[in-house]
Amino acid sequence: MSAQRVAVLQRQLQATIPAGEASSSALQPQPTSAIALRQLPRFDVTLMEHFLDNQLALKAEVYELFRQHPELLVAEEEGMTKEEHRELVRKCLRVILAAGFSPMSFFARDHAKYFNLAELLSLVDLSLTVKLGVQYSLWGGSVINLGTERHRRKYFDDIDRFRLPGCFAMTELKHGSNVAGLQTEAILDVHTDEWIVNTPDDGAIKWWIGNAAEDGKMATVPSPDGSGALDDHGVHAFIVPLRDDGGALWPGVEIHDCGYKVGLNGIDNGAIRFTSVRVPRENLLDRFATVDRSGRYSSPMTSATKRFAATLGELTGGRVGLTCASVGVLKGALTIAVRYSAQRQQFGPPDAPEVAVLDYPSQQMKLMPMLATCYALYFAKNKLVEKYCEMKRTKDEVLVADVHTLSAGLKAYTTSYTNTAIGICRECCGGHGYAARPAASSLCTSSADIFQTFEGDNTVLLQQVAALLLKEYRDSFRGSPLAATWSYLKVWAQDSLPANPLVTHETDVSHLRDPAFLVRALRYRSARLLHTLAARLRKHSRRVGEFTAWNKCLLHVLALSRAHIESVMLVEMLAAVNACVDPDCRRSLKALADLFALDRIYTDITFRNDDYIAPEKAKAIYRLIEALCGEVRGVAVPLVDAFAIPDHILRSPIGLSTTSVDPYSEYLAAAGFDS
Amino acid sequence: MSAQRVAVLQRQLQATIPAGEASSSALQPQPTSAIALRQLPRFDVTLMEHFLDNQLALKAEVYELFRQHPELLVAEEEGMTKEEHRELVRKCLRVILAAGFSPMSFFARDHAKYFNLAELLSLVDLSLTVKLGVQYSLWGGSVINLGTERHRRKYFDDIDRFRLPGCFAMTELKHGSNVAGLQTEAILDVHTDEWIVNTPDDGAIKWWIGNAAEDGKMATVPSPDGSGALDDHGVHAFIVPLRDDGGALWPGVEIHDCGYKVGLNGIDNGAIRFTSVRVPRENLLDRFATVDRSGRYSSPMTSATKRFAATLGELTGGRVGLTCASVGVLKGALTIAVRYSAQRQQFGPPDAPEVAVLDYPSQQMKLMPMLATCYALYFAKNKLVEKYCEMKRTKDEVLVADVHTLSAGLKAYTTSYTNTAIGICRECCGGHGYAARPAASSLCTSSADIFQTFEGDNTVLLQQVAALLLKEYRDSFRGSPLAATWSYLKVWAQDSLPANPLVTHETDVSHLRDPAFLVRALRYRSARLLHTLAARLRKHSRRVGEFTAWNKCLLHVLALSRAHIESVMLVEMLAAVNACVDPDCRRSLKALADLFALDRIYTDITFRNDDYIAPEKAKAIYRLIEALCGEVRGVAVPLVDAFAIPDHILRSPIGLSTTSVDPYSEYLAAAGFDS
Repeated sequence: MSAQRVAVLQRQLQATIPAGEASSSALQPQPTSAIALRQLPRFDVTLMEHFLDNQLALKAEVYELFRQHPELLVAEEEGMTKEEHRELVRKCLRVILAAGFSPMSFFARDHAKYFNLAELLSLVDLSLTVKLGVQYSLWGGSVINLGTERHRRKYFDDIDRFRLPGCFAMTELKHGSNVAGLQTEAILDVHTDEWIVNTPDDGAIKWWIGNAAEDGKMATVPSPDGSGALDDHGVHAFIVPLRDDGGALWPGVEIHDCGYKVGLNGIDNGAIRFTSVRVPRENLLDRFATVDRSGRYSSPMTSATKRFAATLGELTGGRVGLTCASVGVLKGALTIAVRYSAQRQQFGPPDAPEVAVLDYPSQQMKLMPMLATCYALYFAKNKLVEKYCEMKRTKDEVLVADVHTLSAGLKAYTTSYTNTAIGICRECCGGHGYAARPAASSLCTSSADIFQTFEGDNTVLLQQVAALLLKEYRDSFRGSPLAATWSYLKVWAQDSLPANPLVTHETDVSHLRDPAFLVRALRYRSARLLHTLAARLRKHSRRVGEFTAWNKCLLHVLALSRAHIESVMLVEMLAAVNACVDPDCRRSLKALADLFALDRIYTDITFRNDDYIAPEKAKAIYRLIEALCGEVRGVAVPLVDAFAIPDHILRSPIGLSTTSVDPYSEYLAAAGFDS
Repeated sequence: MSAQRVAVLQRQLQATIPAGEASSSALQPQPTSAIALRQLPRFDVTLMEHFLDNQLALKAEVYELFRQHPELLVAEEEGMTKEEHRELVRKCLRVILAAGFSPMSFFARDHAKYFNLAELLSLVDLSLTVKLGVQYSLWGGSVINLGTERHRRKYFDDIDRFRLPGCFAMTELKHGSNVAGLQTEAILDVHTDEWIVNTPDDGAIKWWIGNAAEDGKMATVPSPDGSGALDDHGVHAFIVPLRDDGGALWPGVEIHDCGYKVGLNGIDNGAIRFTSVRVPRENLLDRFATVDRSGRYSSPMTSATKRFAATLGELTGGRVGLTCASVGVLKGALTIAVRYSAQRQQFGPPDAPEVAVLDYPSQQMKLMPMLATCYALYFAKNKLVEKYCEMKRTKDEVLVADVHTLSAGLKAYTTSYTNTAIGICRECCGGHGYAARPAASSLCTSSADIFQTFEGDNTVLLQQVAALLLKEYRDSFRGSPLAATWSYLKVWAQDSLPANPLVTHETDVSHLRDPAFLVRALRYRSARLLHTLAARLRKHSRRVGEFTAWNKCLLHVLALSRAHIESVMLVEMLAAVNACVDPDCRRSLKALADLFALDRIYTDITFRNDDYIAPEKAKAIYRLIEALCGEVRGVAVPLVDAFAIPDHILRSPIGLSTTSVDPYSEYLAAAGFDS
């Protein structure tokens, strides 16, 4: 398909409303025709596909590459050793590089393309996506974002071509989330003009370091120094050699394989102990601070806290990548579960054909809100990527904070959601969802699971969201500007709380599907949680100090962060509804948006505790959710078809894109039966 | 430890209240001392262990066996091929048999011992538990329960010694849950006095049959006949040979390996096609129906429906076994997560030591209600085993229905719960919970996942619970007797509904922790759901017929079944509190019971929709849940220590039973570091 045709379709599909207007017009009630409950019109799948994806050419190119290399499309679950799996991942990477892709350039300059690649590869092999993340986002990203032009010039091409595989060696055995607690030392020896990098005790051994066990030749090592030139200046990052060109370990470097893991065995995670490893002074990645020949320290940034934040801030790219990959996995799992459920028949009325399992409300209630959430996450993720690109371009400070919050929150929300969702999708496919061959491994949580932990433990990341919201909330009363994503919080916190009692009891479907009601409800929740959290923290802090006060309120903190992310998701979803000019696609998207929001409003107890939603309204919402599940079921297959994952990538005989082939025939053949 | 000492301790610990009285006295308020919120006393772990487990000798014996065979304690995640894993499982089984255990005798006569063995082995290797289930409960069980003395005599010893490995070949490619839809044919050839067993089309190929791919020499094949002697008599079971003594396939039998699965690769699942396989007439398992030399059919049971129910009813044992194994897995995962969280430190107040992650409310809210649920499931499972044994002894019809319902419901509830719980436990252990070596594979859902599907899909099983409750509910109005487990439903459905408005608003802690309130609340919910479901079904059935009416109400049906199981769990948990005479143990058990019940009452929206729990009461419950999480946290480690899983079985360096060893040292050594 030509890029031109895509561009034309894009123009047809996307209304030219600027983002700001789109989200405010999302608050306008929809015409009645979109509200009434009835069959959703069958939309044109290609139109929807093109509305969703504005990089179809990249997708076609990448997936075509793997069509030409079927030997690379093997599943981890098929009894590979970790060494075999790692070699497979390296082969995949080499094929991508040989085809002319330049992942390091993407990461450094063409961000949207990089993140799209991460999402696309997640369905090839999650280990491959992570390998890409380790090499380009973590290792390469640390060099180009924490280093200066000198480092970039020296290493860029070798990193890009994988001639210089490297690591980002942050996590230690005893310190993961608490980065400020890292203990690896870097001390400057002014006599030799070298840093001495040292692991002071076993707890400080670097652990889970991707690329370390087999491939890594160098590592970026973030280390607070115990003594010496950087004393009291906080965490800094150094480039430390691990292996020479022949692959032999560098003097003073001890590396062991972290061994088999529950999943992602295509990644060579290793544990590293440094025993007084000497590296040149220039190996300090010195964008935020430098040390001269005499050992004098200087930094353009005034405080150690700001420097620490700026250093860690450069890790946002990794979280954006994980969010994209996780959405990719979710799309894959849903594609299989929806298609299988639509064709698998079991039980039926007496003397009548059996019924498709997707026609059972139990299956619908599992899969339809998940499909709605997947779409919402997809649009929210697009927004995140867009903001990230803008931030990289403008370096605007408010935007930096916004992207930091949104990437932390969406990474946490998406990866937790996807992990749970995959399990449910597997269960929805019964026994056939448990087969690894031919790969239904998209239905296996083993690999996606750890996404909840790495690049920031989800519980910790969610706290960062709340912390930033609180900070901005307090600042806003002092007149500072607010980022677009959370500007609603100020308005709402000052707005009429508690709710209007009339609205509390309103049960009309046109009200319940009015975007104004839905957005207001989710925003009300975040604002209310923020408002009450601020008050509780103030109260407790006076008595027990900030650390304990925060932890006393921890569940409240987490609820606020999730609520905020869901309100962002809804707004982006509704903006997409508005941006979609094809009426049929739009109807389905609107139904998904409503289902997503109503599902959250119904299940979140916060609304009940506040009497924001009266019991009879809750019951009306539940009836509407059931009805919407039924409606969406009618277009569920086209909705996953629009993800347009080619069969040779999905590799699931129970989730084939065509309905003209008996779905079981490939399955039988793969097991060895002639048919 | 001697059996005698155990018996003495048992007497000390268990109050001699008969089961019936125990559950009614569970409704009495506890003395105030047990209600007040404060630190729970540190109890004696050995006392608790002995209170929990009345087969300590079996446990010691089985686990000692594996201590002597460390070569068998390898984890599936460590890069084994499926063939290697299957051989490992066979070796384990042989060791068990060589030690003098007779699993077939246990299953046939010493039921409690059999189920206990299933639970114990679940922590050795889940594939081993399933292998045991396939050979003894499914294959052996079908022979002894569906066959007659003749079959038992002929096969019992060979099955027991694994000289005759066999299968229970029920599931077909296109029919799993809908057993009545099976299509494999068995037709009697009166001329040769043989059954001709045939697979009419590819959809009827037997699929996922455990023991089939490598080991099976025979299979029990439940088949409805398309024509011939059994015409219109429904599903019957036949013994069909698969392989001769040399392992060669029997004429007309085609078997293929189902290949790699997401987990449980130690089980040789196979797919079987029968092409007119001839078996002697005597191979019909004829306890419920027989066919004579002339082809005349006779059955002691009057209707095909009853015969079908009786045949499937004999599968309850499998569900009891899976429930036990699933509780075992949950205990293992919790043991690791709680111990690790208690010692892992991360972050802390300024200039103070870091804090154990278990001290964070976020971690407590994940793990403490789970610990409470684990105890509740454990006691409920014990009750199920007890009832099963009684049913086998008395063959009482009401008890048969009770055990059928309870085993279906508990299997579904436990396996779903455990699957979700393992994932949360893994996340609670961060990166170190993701290592497969040394095995933290208890934190991996891959194997436990499929428990939700096999031996009855959970969604289907839950419907059976509701169906039986409805039947008995209707019968009860005609004066039929009710089983003990659900007798409350009748009383409550006739009792004062809706709730007393005073109780709805009562927020006092002594009220909220009063067993009478807790039991009443959970029973109210089930009774109300049953009552309203019956009314809805009546209404819809008139219009759209029973099948559609049922499916229209499906989510209501599932909610009822889960609610019923939770009310059973609470009553058994409170009965255990009453039966425990050690005051310290009892205090902890009571706190767990309260936490379990309050957690369910708070999170289930049903209570809010009915206004049974007013918002201010809900908030008081939430505060109490938070406080109870804090209390239970104080005894969380002893509570998992009381499960007494030996370190060599748990094989988790981050979950060691002793606190005297640095938990990381074994971990470091395993990775290859000298320390």
